[in-house]
Formats: sequence, C-alpha cells, structure tokens
Amino acid sequence: MPQPVCAIVGAGEGLGCSLAAKFAGEGFDIALISRSEKGSSAAAAAAAGANAGANVKFFAADATQPDTIEQALATIVGDMGDVDVLIYNVRGSFTACEPLEMTYADLDGIYRLEVVGAFAAAKSVLPAMRERGRGSVLFSSATAALRGSATHPLYAIGKFGLRALSQSLAKAYAKDGVHIAHFRLDCDLDVPIMRELYGDQYDSEKLADPNDVAETYWLTYQQPRGAWSNEVEIRPHTETWTY
Amino acid sequence: MPQPVCAIVGAGEGLGCSLAAKFAGEGFDIALISRSEKGSSAAAAAAAGANAGANVKFFAADATQPDTIEQALATIVGDMGDVDVLIYNVRGSFTACEPLEMTYADLDGIYRLEVVGAFAAAKSVLPAMRERGRGSVLFSSATAALRGSATHPLYAIGKFGLRALSQSLAKAYAKDGVHIAHFRLDCDLDVPIMRELYGDQYDSEKLADPNDVAETYWLTYQQPRGAWSNEVEIRPHTETWTY
Amino acid sequence: MPQPVCAIVGAGEGLGCSLAAKFAGEGFDIALISRSEKGSSAAAAAAAGANAGANVKFFAADATQPDTIEQALATIVGDMGDVDVLIYNVRGSFTACEPLEMTYADLDGIYRLEVVGAFAAAKSVLPAMRERGRGSVLFSSATAALRGSATHPLYAIGKFGLRALSQSLAKAYAKDGVHIAHFRLDCDLDVPIMRELYGDQYDSEKLADPNDVAETYWLTYQQPRGAWSNEVEIRPHTETWTY
Amino acid sequence: MPQPVCAIVGAGEGLGCSLAAKFAGEGFDIALISRSEKGSSAAAAAAAGANAGANVKFFAADATQPDTIEQALATIVGDMGDVDVLIYNVRGSFTACEPLEMTYADLDGIYRLEVVGAFAAAKSVLPAMRERGRGSVLFSSATAALRGSATHPLYAIGKFGLRALSQSLAKAYAKDGVHIAHFRLDCDLDVPIMRELYGDQYDSEKLADPNDVAETYWLTYQQPRGAWSNEVEIRPHTETWTY
Repeated sequence: MPQPVCAIVGAGEGLGCSLAAKFAGEGFDIALISRSEKGSSAAAAAAAGANAGANVKFFAADATQPDTIEQALATIVGDMGDVDVLIYNVRGSFTACEPLEMTYADLDGIYRLEVVGAFAAAKSVLPAMRERGRGSVLFSSATAALRGSATHPLYAIGKFGLRALSQSLAKAYAKDGVHIAHFRLDCDLDVPIMRELYGDQYDSEKLADPNDVAETYWLTYQQPRGAWSNEVEIRPHTETWTY
Repeated sequence: MPQPVCAIVGAGEGLGCSLAAKFAGEGFDIALISRSEKGSSAAAAAAAGANAGANVKFFAADATQPDTIEQALATIVGDMGDVDVLIYNVRGSFTACEPLEMTYADLDGIYRLEVVGAFAAAKSVLPAMRERGRGSVLFSSATAALRGSATHPLYAIGKFGLRALSQSLAKAYAKDGVHIAHFRLDCDLDVPIMRELYGDQYDSEKLADPNDVAETYWLTYQQPRGAWSNEVEIRPHTETWTY
Repeated sequence: MPQPVCAIVGAGEGLGCSLAAKFAGEGFDIALISRSEKGSSAAAAAAAGANAGANVKFFAADATQPDTIEQALATIVGDMGDVDVLIYNVRGSFTACEPLEMTYADLDGIYRLEVVGAFAAAKSVLPAMRERGRGSVLFSSATAALRGSATHPLYAIGKFGLRALSQSLAKAYAKDGVHIAHFRLDCDLDVPIMRELYGDQYDSEKLADPNDVAETYWLTYQQPRGAWSNEVEIRPHTETWTY
Repeated sequence: MPQPVCAIVGAGEGLGCSLAAKFAGEGFDIALISRSEKGSSAAAAAAAGANAGANVKFFAADATQPDTIEQALATIVGDMGDVDVLIYNVRGSFTACEPLEMTYADLDGIYRLEVVGAFAAAKSVLPAMRERGRGSVLFSSATAALRGSATHPLYAIGKFGLRALSQSLAKAYAKDGVHIAHFRLDCDLDVPIMRELYGDQYDSEKLADPNDVAETYWLTYQQPRGAWSNEVEIRPHTETWTY
C-alpha cells in the first residue's frame, strides 16, 4: 500500500532534518529537494532512521530556479505519487548588511529564493491538491516577515514577500480543502550554523530544538479543516519575545 | 491513579461543551465552572459521554466576581487535585451598540468578564504551575482582540484587554514552563446561539464546528515547550478572512 | 470674537504643557483639566506664555471618576464654548510589577484611567461635534497599546483598551466629520519624571522632546478630512524601534 | 536663490499630479520622473499652475530598470541640485488574478516596480541626505502592504516588500536625520483610473481626494525630527476601514 508523500524543499542539517524524521516516523514517504544530494544526506539518514520502511528519495533542484523546482516536483509525483504535504523550508543567507549595501543581485536572489521558489513549489502541487480536496503547504518563515531590519534587510524583504504569498494562497485555496500555513519562528534554532554564529555565547537553552519545532509543524498539519491556523508562531518557552 | 485535571471557566453549550468532551476523552478529569449547574449540564453530559471514567464536577462561580473564581479554583484543587489545564472560555454579550450607547456599567461589566475574571482564574493556578514547572492556561478570544468596532465596541474593548493580559502572562511565566495561549477565533462558531442570530442565513458550512475548534486547542496543548505558539488563530477552511 | 477651544485632560508638566502652549500659540483658548490646579499650573503658564491673548482656564476633575469628567466638560462648554479639540493625555503609573503582583484595585484603576475616563471625555464632546460636523478627539497612547509586557502589564492592559476605544469611535463617527486619533508614542519623553527614572542614564538625545511631539499632534490636527490618520506613530529620529 | 528640490518617481495623473502641485506651491522645484514626458505632462502643468516660479522638469526613467532610475536622479542632482524630498509613487497594475494565475514574469515585474525601483531611487539620494543630515524619502503604499489577497496577490507581494524596505531604511538611517515614511492609503483615490474601474458605482464621496492626500504627505514632511511618523495611514473620513 502506498504511503502518503511529504516533499521538503530545503532539507539541510537543521529543521529540514527534523521534519524529514518526523514525517517519516509518522508513516510518510519523504522526497528531499536540495541543490546537491550531499546537502540532504543528513535528512535522508534521519528519515530512514525514524522509519526503516519509509521510501526516502533525493531530487535535485535549485530553489532560485523555478523551472528546476517544477521539474523536481513533477518527477516526484511520477515516481512516488501525489504530494500530500509540501514543506518549503529554504533559508537565505544571514549575512548582515546595512540597507545601502544591498546589491541588485542580492535583492534578486533573496526574492527568487523566498518568493518565486515558494510559488514555484506551491503551484507544482496545488492544482492536484485542490482536485483531491486535501493537502498541506507549509512555509518556514520568521519574525523577519513582520518587521524591517537595519542590519538584515534582505532577510526581511524576502520573508515579507513569502508571508504575502502564503496569505494570498490561503485566502484563495483554503476553501478547496488545502491547508496553507506560514510558520513564524520567533527564535533561533539550535542547529549547527547557529552554534557557529553564537560562538562563545552559544546556549542551547536559549535556542529552539528543531525536533520540537518539527513536532509543532506536525501538530499543525493534524488540525481539522474546521479549525485551521494559517499563521503559526513558534518560540521556545525560554524565549524573550522580540515582537 | 489520579487523572490530570482540566478546569473550564465558562462551560456552556457551545465550545465549552466540546472542550469538556475532548479533554475528558483524552483522560482528564473535568472541573466545570459556571454560574449555575444547569448552565454546564450539557458540558457535563458531553464529558461523561466521552469518557465514562472521567471525574466530572461542577463548581459555581461568577466570572465577573473574581473572589468567586478564586474560591472555586481553590475548592477544585482541594477536591480534585492540581489543575493541569485551565481554559478561560467565557463569552460576553454580542448585543450590538454604537460606542456612544455604551454605559459605564457596560464598560465595567465587560472588563470584569474578559480581563479581571481571566486574571483571577490565572492567578489561582499559576503559582502552583510555576512550582511544578508545567501547566497550560488557554484563553478563548476572537479577532475582536485586534481591531475596534463601530457596532460591537464592548466586545473589542474586552478582548483587547484579554490579549494584553495573555501576552503579559506568557512573557512573564513561559520561562517557568507554563504554556499560556490566546486563541483568536476568526470565525463564528456553529453553536445554538449563532443559529438563532443567523436565522434564515444560517449555513453550517460557514461556521466553525466547535468540535474541530476543541481539537485545535488540544493540538496546541500538546506542543512541546521548545516550540510553543502563544497566539493561535483559528478559522474554518471555508472562512473568508476578515482581517 | 470667540476663539476655538482646546480641552486637555491630563495637562501636567510634560507633554500636556507642550500641547497647551502649542494650541494656545495657534489661537486656541485652553481648558486644562486636572485633579488639582497646582498640577496644571505649568501648562497654564506655558499656554499664557505662548499667547497672552488666549483664554486659559483650569477645571478640576479626576479622570478615574467619569462623572467629574462629564461635569468639567459641561462646565467648559457653558463657560468657554463648544470644544473643538479634546486631548486625552492622562498617564498611568509606570510602576513596574510582574503580572501576578497586580491587584484587583490596580486593574480597576488603570481601566478607569485609560478607558473609562477617555470614554467619559469623548462622550462629553462627541454629540456636539457630530452635530456641527467637525471636531477632533486625540488620545495620547504608547507602543504598550500593541504588546503585552512581563514587567508593565497594567500599562499594556490600559493602553490596549484605549486603542480599542479609539478605533471603535473612529470607525463609528469619522463619517460625521469628527477626527479621532490615537497617538502611539514609541519612545520615552524628555520630561521631568523620565529624567528621574533614567538617573545617570539620562540622555536627552534618546528621548522625544515634548514640544516636537506637540508639533506632530498639531500637524495631525491639520489633516484634511479627506486624508486622515487615525493611528499615528511617533518616535524621535534617534529612536531604536522597539516594535 | 536655489529652491529646494522635490523629485517624484511616478508622477502621473492622480496623486503624483497633486503632490507636484503641493510641493511646487510650497516653494519646491519639481523633478518629474516617468517613462514618457507625456505621462507626466499633467503633473508638470499642475506644478507650474501652483507656482509659476517653480522650476519643473521632466526626466525619463523606467522604475523597473534601476539603472535608469539611478541615471535620472544623478542627472537631476547635476541639473537642479541635491534632492531634498524624494517621493516614490509608482503604482502597479490592479489587474485581478488568482494566485495560481501569476506568471514568473508578473512576479518579477511587480518586484522590480515596487521594491527594486524604490531601492534604486532611495540609494540614489540617501548618501547625500545622510551627509547633509536631512532629507525625506516618502513611499506611496497601501493597506495591501499588510495582508495578502485572493484576488490581487501581486499587489500584496509588491507592497509587502516595499514596506519591508521602508522600515529597514528608516531603522538604519533615521538617526542620520533622514525621514523615511511609508504612506498606507487605506482607500481608493478619486483619480481617472478609479472612475473607470468603478463605472456606475463611482461615488466621489467614498474616494480620497488626491489633493487631500498630498496635503497629508506635506504635513508629514513638516514633522520635526524629534517626533516622526515612519508609517502613516490615510483614509477619508467616509471610509469604512478594511483592516
């Protein structure tokens, strides 16, 4: 009997890894979409570890190239079956810059990554989801979607756009039975890149455990269609609210 | 072996009934707090129906009289044990009026119901929850908490205040392991009073099923402490967003 | 020829003083409403200094006692003429406390000050303003109106309620030609009480000059009815946004 | 003696025309930036009509081509002097579509118009403004910047991005004396294109008079640096709030 399929765009070492393990553990086959197979090898191992019976496969695509996203998702459908859950979980560069240091290439890149790629992924699965009358499209985002930044303007511009897209999709297609949700992480994740960034200041108590975050994605996925959240905020119990 | 205790302030025929049934069905003993036993009889029956083994009890209190709320919760702790989940689920009058028609008594009444009563309930359970390092305080609210109204100003004033209280409690006590959440229902519920209000316009498809809403409360309750939502929006998939 | 009348509830040493001077300087007669004449003596002097021809009068009322507010405004109308601009500028205690330290008396007091008193003042002037088809009701508020606080929950609860009231009034009565505006000061003011609170940390560059803030109130007052702001944020150019 | 310079990107028949007239009437020289001189001829006539002594000039640029914006503004500075006020007032297509009908070209176009072009304009004037310690950059936006849309997703995605940019610039450069403001028009303007769109439903009372809106831009421009608004909402007194 075929398992339901969860496709994850941006399945790296952090949250993507936890999401792959969680959905695999709950009985999903997992399609991992990254630029390189190496980039998603940790997620693949985690998914297999969580459920040896899960079908876990890698598909190459570059989120900033919408055609490659469309092709990867078409291949997934042909190979593994319809996508039941799509998680768009890319993460742009956190490199700090002041607004006047942004280049046009930076502006183009963040938009392709956060908005155009998210749209390409959503449009690759939404028509079939609407036809079946069910499906979930989950976008990983951040509090940066709600306020500009003197030091990380690119991140804000990208996440604002992603939130506009997510709300627009939810308003248009929730009625067809498709659950579209924007996860606002109001916290830093306890993932390898953050340990590097924090250095001596690293304190796991202050960061969100990606396994906990994946659990909250899963609980949101389980919401009945009569009582959906379309925007979900997430912070660890130790977090000082920044907003 | 004692069951965990869920106390519900405002357990009437609608959402309170569904919440009582849900938490009873999941193994909780249920303490129902209303002005009259008759007012919570439907909820009591629903809880018993969901789990014949649940200990379901009624305690009289008037949410607009904070001393009675404190007394009822003290009695519950003595009688049934520590409260693990407190749900504050009162609902003020929906009577429409324009702002200049509000009386000082109206203003006082809505504040006592939505803010003072909610605080009285929270303060009756929070010290013990903080000491144990766990517990959940869930407030039923609405989109009225986010915007004023030309036609229902009292409802807005009350819910704004409740939201301020809920955020303040979460910011102060989440770190102690207590999950405080404000549920913004961006919808009308399919409950008896709404059927009356809508009359010929009644369409169950446009309203949120209170059992679905209770399910989403339950899923929120299950969030791990590393990934909590403190404000949860809820709308049925058929809902046109009003905000 | 009679001058237009500006009534200021809460005309103390800080912003109230600057507002009295600004509106007097622009040709308004000024009615100052405070608990004691001494409390508004600085504002009275400032108004007289800005315009020796202005009629500047004191009227006693306690903002937490709505009847006294109503009486003071009725006296003002009888004595000085219809109120053209009402500014509600009270400021509650900044005393820090954690949420569980709030008393019921505290909760009652802040609500009477921020919401009930504001409503009493507004309802004393709105019917005549609606009849004349013009008038302005300006509420002094703060970013506390938008988020709860672990350390100043009373301030948040009061300002949330004030914002709900202001929005409700604007939605109901703007169409009648009455401009209702909520001023969100996202900053601390350079006023005597702040110098005390900051102590050694006092730095006038980081605080908003109350004369500048009064100027922005005045500019908002001048907005044509075809292009009103109902919520106005204010911060000095040196301010780090807190929201 | 040279006049201060106000540069307007997107000076068509509607608000751009009123802004040109307002700032000319207040003593500014006016630089009009549009794709074709014909497109800004009404604004040029309005500015000249408001102040026969104003120097009013046209400069060709395409807001979706950032290099042309940079070149036009460099030419303006060389020709007319430093820009004191920059108004970015482009308006994308209002063509309705559901989200799945958006093309990648549409997504690219709206971003170039609303975000990249706004950034190109800002970056062409901000360094000199920061050096002089004064200047104003004003962005025309809409309530679409705050919520997604089932029917106008492109407009929302563009305005969300513009708001993120505006907040980021304000947070970074207000401290240098540059006033950056985002005008959220929560209304439709009474301009030729709206008369067409509304057809038989056209009712000038329900629309904002662009001269009133220009007046509110002007009043915002006059705010002292100690009390700036960075986000300004505008609606006519007859407007039913949509948010």
